[in-house]
Amino acid sequence: MPIADKVALYQALVSAGLTRIEVTSFVAPKAIPQLADAAQFVAALGPHPDVWLSALTPNLTGAERAVAAGMDEVTVFLSASETHNRHNVRRSVQQSLSQAAEVAEALEGASVVRSAVIATAFDCPYEGPQDAQKVAELARRLREMGYAPILFGDTIGAANPLSVSRLLEATERHLPVREIGLHFHNTRDSALANLLVGLERGITLFDGAVGGMGGCPYAPGATGNVASEDVVAMVEAMGITTGVDLAKLVAAAALAQDLVGRQLPSACLKAFDRTQGTWAAYAH
Amino acid sequence: MPIADKVALYQALVSAGLTRIEVTSFVAPKAIPQLADAAQFVAALGPHPDVWLSALTPNLTGAERAVAAGMDEVTVFLSASETHNRHNVRRSVQQSLSQAAEVAEALEGASVVRSAVIATAFDCPYEGPQDAQKVAELARRLREMGYAPILFGDTIGAANPLSVSRLLEATERHLPVREIGLHFHNTRDSALANLLVGLERGITLFDGAVGGMGGCPYAPGATGNVASEDVVAMVEAMGITTGVDLAKLVAAAALAQDLVGRQLPSACLKAFDRTQGTWAAYAH
Repeated sequence: MPIADKVALYQALVSAGLTRIEVTSFVAPKAIPQLADAAQFVAALGPHPDVWLSALTPNLTGAERAVAAGMDEVTVFLSASETHNRHNVRRSVQQSLSQAAEVAEALEGASVVRSAVIATAFDCPYEGPQDAQKVAELARRLREMGYAPILFGDTIGAANPLSVSRLLEATERHLPVREIGLHFHNTRDSALANLLVGLERGITLFDGAVGGMGGCPYAPGATGNVASEDVVAMVEAMGITTGVDLAKLVAAAALAQDLVGRQLPSACLKAFDRTQGTWAAYAH
Repeated sequence: MPIADKVALYQALVSAGLTRIEVTSFVAPKAIPQLADAAQFVAALGPHPDVWLSALTPNLTGAERAVAAGMDEVTVFLSASETHNRHNVRRSVQQSLSQAAEVAEALEGASVVRSAVIATAFDCPYEGPQDAQKVAELARRLREMGYAPILFGDTIGAANPLSVSRLLEATERHLPVREIGLHFHNTRDSALANLLVGLERGITLFDGAVGGMGGCPYAPGATGNVASEDVVAMVEAMGITTGVDLAKLVAAAALAQDLVGRQLPSACLKAFDRTQGTWAAYAH
């Protein structure tokens, strides 16, 4: 996707009122050529005093590039599942933890927030359901290194309200709730139910993707993250103020859909009437 | 849809372990010609000692046809919203209540369960959000006439976890939880979150539609009921036994999809690998 298109999408998100955006990943250009333009793209965004920018970084090189590019937040990641971690980054979980410690130390003193994502935190395509105590212990160790917030990634969209509840219960012994985030994919259509469990336990940090974009080449049948606009629609309907203008966010999702040139899974894209600025079901 | 196809779908559902199926509606053949075959279709199902069959009936004529056809349960319906009720059945809510009383009396003594659906119980395309006390009072009056269970229909898929919680709280003063059912459409992708709220309050009766079939010609952007298989997938993952074989239910959804000849919104249809009999995301 050309940088100009990415900038247009970013601007649409900011104009909808989003203030915290994961804009790119600083990964090896050889591994993911689509993101080789990370630094250029971020430079093209210009000053962003009211928007908090974060980026995924797999290692120290990536983290240093992210800081140099002016990120507000640098997010490391590892998998809870040993097998998935080896497939994903070709090292053991222990080696990934050591690397995370290295990144944390290197960024000590830099004016950048260090956050971490624990992937396959609920279920793994190779190992199946993950033990909540094991995952909570990983979160504790990452926090000890200075990572906060720590997000639990439901990489294959296989979490359910009970597994979410159990992991949060196990984690709350080690981390304050405000330092926990949840990252759901909507593969089984249960992302909003899972999110509700987090909300009821006091979590306020949830990842979403505009339009529900995403997926994973290594997870057959996987869909993207839960659509940001579907999250906003539900929580605003519950009387929770997000500061986001739903109509503008749905417009951003429509732009994302145009840019990728295929139908995105977002419910709002179907159910919200962008011409009327309200739900299509309402009689006009 | 030819009766043979409907029978094949019914048999697929029964073989998946479903024991309670709304098979048709006994409505005026002129109004909905597609359902003019209701009695013939039910006759074609043959004996069904282990399956509980219900049908929607808008009035006494329909109810009598349903009983004659051998239904186990006859479901009347009215809308909570005055405006929607007038659009839907061309009478006031009070007139619909009188009609429900007439049906209840006529079926007194017949060995048939009388249930009721309150449509637009959460939100109405004409009037917007509905008052929980008003809807709970309608439920109380229907129960007084002998209707049980009473289901709340989220006709335009606009309920949210808070509105569900409020309506259940208002209703539980009048009805035992086991007599309350929930009927969600997945228009905003929040059906499973709404269902979870019911589950947490002890509700065990939830309507679904295989494949997520459905929709409404008078509700733009509306999708069908939440997909039965997506409900089963979530609650079974939570350790709740449904008696349903998920792989077989997904196979039934695939059959439904073939029969209607268009892609159905069910998440399982995408995420479940029918060849392997497990989630596509799992490595084989």
